[in-house]
Amino acid sequence: MISGHNKYDDYFSPSCSFSNIEKEGLYKAIFSRRDVRSQFIADKDLPDDVLFRILNAAHHAPSVGFSQPWNFILIKNKSIRMQVKESFLKEYRKSISLLEENNDDDKQRKEKYMSLKLEGIMESALNICVTYDHTRFGPFVLGRTSIAETGVYSVCCAIQNLWLAARAEGVGVGWVSILSNEDLRKILAVPNHIRPIAYLCLGYVNEFSDKPDLESAGWLPRLEVNKVICYDKWGSNDPSGICTAI
Amino acid sequence: MISGHNKYDDYFSPSCSFSNIEKEGLYKAIFSRRDVRSQFIADKDLPDDVLFRILNAAHHAPSVGFSQPWNFILIKNKSIRMQVKESFLKEYRKSISLLEENNDDDKQRKEKYMSLKLEGIMESALNICVTYDHTRFGPFVLGRTSIAETGVYSVCCAIQNLWLAARAEGVGVGWVSILSNEDLRKILAVPNHIRPIAYLCLGYVNEFSDKPDLESAGWLPRLEVNKVICYDKWGSNDPSGICTAI
Repeated sequence: MISGHNKYDDYFSPSCSFSNIEKEGLYKAIFSRRDVRSQFIADKDLPDDVLFRILNAAHHAPSVGFSQPWNFILIKNKSIRMQVKESFLKEYRKSISLLEENNDDDKQRKEKYMSLKLEGIMESALNICVTYDHTRFGPFVLGRTSIAETGVYSVCCAIQNLWLAARAEGVGVGWVSILSNEDLRKILAVPNHIRPIAYLCLGYVNEFSDKPDLESAGWLPRLEVNKVICYDKWGSNDPSGICTAI
Repeated sequence: MISGHNKYDDYFSPSCSFSNIEKEGLYKAIFSRRDVRSQFIADKDLPDDVLFRILNAAHHAPSVGFSQPWNFILIKNKSIRMQVKESFLKEYRKSISLLEENNDDDKQRKEKYMSLKLEGIMESALNICVTYDHTRFGPFVLGRTSIAETGVYSVCCAIQNLWLAARAEGVGVGWVSILSNEDLRKILAVPNHIRPIAYLCLGYVNEFSDKPDLESAGWLPRLEVNKVICYDKWGSNDPSGICTAI
């Protein structure tokens, strides 16, 4: 059993404000967080207290109706991980066949795709499968009555908390999404009413890259934040008095 | 247009580690973040630079294949918000009818539900509808070929970044999920290929509650973190050498 004291329950006064350096701490985690595939230090385990803080951060995510519908399967066993890796390889081969080769640009893109390292299942210290239980505290879950998917959204918020806490602890996280959920169910004995949401690889790293790997590799550019903001209605770029250029 | 310099692009050395106080800053945001419905200070606007930092934090979330598939519709217009509030009221009435009344416990639960304040659409400084665009940089999105929903998961990670950044800036966020997505589409002119994921209310608050409202109200208890962790396979509580009790 993993355990540790959540000192934060006692620590914060309810309306506490943030000092500049505390604020910087949060932004540093947000902006320097990376999806890690290549830089894991093999065989360097995560101490219990670090793992506790990371999982406890995940567990303090918002959840619809306070339903806390997540589970975390911590996977250290290498033969189980090898089965997950096989599922990755199968799905990866399928994904390659989806890339078109109509022209030189397509071919270059396919070559680039095939040159990327996309997972660190075996090299990382620990794998975590994060799942969603729609039955928890149900069937009536407050706030989930109109949009059923909000339960899944809660699990994703927990994953982001986990990722940021890991970053602050110096632990890299990589999300392996080229997997079959049906394979995961079988390998991890996940019951039918439970849905795998994320398969994560965690471990100490040699470094955190300066930029996301896919940005550095020229796969896609970072969008300007203004390109994804509109005002009052979809597609309206008129600030309508909300925001003026600084 | 909202703008500001993202100093963090220049600021962090790639492998920077966190000082204790920076780490505390992150954990403070995670553990003192609340879903705010009641405590908004009316008519206190969010300054542009604060709003920029919050949205830029969201925009630096992880996204599958670096697809950055989110949009943020910032809604200040009160007549638009009133239409959203009407959608809430309609869905809220439906939700009440879902609560059973077979015995005294059921009746008490229903009364408790009806006594809760569940949204701050009109009182908050700003509403934000966060949406998902599955066509962005598609149709081939790296890492989304096996599990299509991973695009939505990215948007949820952005929402959690937004929520934490807002908390550090002293800004409350409430997620209104008792809404009809079809109503939202019509009210905000959201095209068919775009999916609304979250409707958020943002604003300065009188206080951040000590605990989640639903925990304080006795709606549901906080689970022990250990109850949601298992080892190597679903349902196994045997630590298998990963973690020992501290």
